[in-house]
Amino acid sequence: MATIKDVAKYCGVSAMTVSRALNNSTEISQETKERILKACQELGYKPNNAARSLITKKTKMVGLIIPDITNQYYANISKGVSSYIEALGYGLVLCNSDRKKTNEQGYLDFLTEGRCDGIIILPVNPQKEDYEQIAKITPMVMADNYAEGLDVSFISSDNYYGGTKIVEHLIKQGYRRIGIILGGERSTASNERFRAYKTVLKNNNIEFDENIVIYSNATFEEGFILAEKLLEKGVDCIFAINDTVAMGVIKYCYLKGIKISEDVGIAGYDNIEQSSMLPIPLTTVDQNGKLLGQMAAGLLMDQLNGETVKNKVITLEPKLVIRKSCREI
Amino acid sequence: MATIKDVAKYCGVSAMTVSRALNNSTEISQETKERILKACQELGYKPNNAARSLITKKTKMVGLIIPDITNQYYANISKGVSSYIEALGYGLVLCNSDRKKTNEQGYLDFLTEGRCDGIIILPVNPQKEDYEQIAKITPMVMADNYAEGLDVSFISSDNYYGGTKIVEHLIKQGYRRIGIILGGERSTASNERFRAYKTVLKNNNIEFDENIVIYSNATFEEGFILAEKLLEKGVDCIFAINDTVAMGVIKYCYLKGIKISEDVGIAGYDNIEQSSMLPIPLTTVDQNGKLLGQMAAGLLMDQLNGETVKNKVITLEPKLVIRKSCREI
Repeated sequence: MATIKDVAKYCGVSAMTVSRALNNSTEISQETKERILKACQELGYKPNNAARSLITKKTKMVGLIIPDITNQYYANISKGVSSYIEALGYGLVLCNSDRKKTNEQGYLDFLTEGRCDGIIILPVNPQKEDYEQIAKITPMVMADNYAEGLDVSFISSDNYYGGTKIVEHLIKQGYRRIGIILGGERSTASNERFRAYKTVLKNNNIEFDENIVIYSNATFEEGFILAEKLLEKGVDCIFAINDTVAMGVIKYCYLKGIKISEDVGIAGYDNIEQSSMLPIPLTTVDQNGKLLGQMAAGLLMDQLNGETVKNKVITLEPKLVIRKSCREI
Repeated sequence: MATIKDVAKYCGVSAMTVSRALNNSTEISQETKERILKACQELGYKPNNAARSLITKKTKMVGLIIPDITNQYYANISKGVSSYIEALGYGLVLCNSDRKKTNEQGYLDFLTEGRCDGIIILPVNPQKEDYEQIAKITPMVMADNYAEGLDVSFISSDNYYGGTKIVEHLIKQGYRRIGIILGGERSTASNERFRAYKTVLKNNNIEFDENIVIYSNATFEEGFILAEKLLEKGVDCIFAINDTVAMGVIKYCYLKGIKISEDVGIAGYDNIEQSSMLPIPLTTVDQNGKLLGQMAAGLLMDQLNGETVKNKVITLEPKLVIRKSCREI
């Protein structure tokens, strides 16, 4: 493989001149630049990113930490981030925390060893202490869940609004004993939806019962398992923290011959593609993950370009999507 | 942020000794090593990956190029790759080619600028010339589709076997005019399934009709559009190149009130999670994407560890999954 010295020798210029050509410097003529770039191509010379990183202090990489790549909502966010940054010549280091705090910490260490210029994180049960050191030295954007008091930009959809809309809809359809499967106890997205749930119940004079509130790790498998627990407690409706959990609940109902919408109403959150294609399509809330990913990337890119965007908070308005998994009145 | 010099000063040793401690060298005592590592932690010193890369020539990163992150089959492969390499201290640079040759080329350029130690690629319409230069200088593993004559390791499931099993099943259920939606014309996975399709038709004395064979970009949207074209040509069954395309076909049938399995049989490929949860669950072939991803990562890691695995070819046996989208006889 050719080195920068080979290219310099071939062109009869110094290595510094080759470097200037590669960095599109204005200190050399256009003609020389083109001659050098052509030589690089002919000789198969590729500049090394590690060497360039040391000089420019830029890796041209963005780290993205998500909870679960096989959940389509997060896949959509990843696609939004990657399409945005790639158009600007950046690559994506994708890290799948599997909703585990230890994985997340490992990735943060890994990424901040000079592997990326900035980080977008969808944190797991976040607390300020987990991120404040890193946020001081690395541009960082949080999405979906935030850590109270942390000085970073944050983007999410309005979980209180989305939670309000869907629980109001469930009550309007006549459901009165609505079980809820939440995410982790420190998930702000989950907590906001829970806050909405409690407020809407109160506004409708329905007594709150903590026996039908369950925290979870937000997976398909847990939806399947927790469906049984809630149904044993006589719920007439289950509001799941996301569509993937709701699909676990639905699978349980199939197996037990429980009629969805008649015997039990089911609602999810996210509006992933398959929620519209179920035998009884799922009532849910659309968060537009791809847009959220693009906007998170935009916030980070602004920081990388030196614009002051710290502490910028963007809240997107989600949309209620009414389908047949809850009865119609 | 502390530098290596700060750590050296703090410990009363040279920067070289700190570097040796960080690289777990045997040239310094265990006691000194521990003292230095503790100091790194206390002072918040982090070794820079770019600097280390230049010395060790290792980035501890693996590049993965996939066709579509929002397709769950590829998400499963990504998860398999990342879980395998992360256990070995490597990170994943994820690149989503969107099945576009120009994107793929851009990523290969990007990755080979010293951004990763090796590449796993699920190539788009591959040809030897597209990869042979890169394969000479960068350890590379191909998955799913291969380029004839290229000297790299390759892993896929047995597409001829999977194609044979599913088309035999369709004929056994009484379907005679089976339309087929293929992938790209140079996709070997698609071509192998097509070869199986033609052989099974011949073995069953069914005339091959090229009018009901359509190449595609293998997306949900194309499944929806091409369903109409095939149904106009009087097919009694549609075999789609993957479950995502099959779901596009199914969505078209829903909208038009066409009865799946009675009016038209539908079969897919991949066995993604939602194919079992459709109103009429999808007959398909299970490829086990996560395992395939893990094994591809294993092949690459062997190369990175200096083992001779070039040209190793692994073929996994897929499984026919019979469900109700094709009539039962």
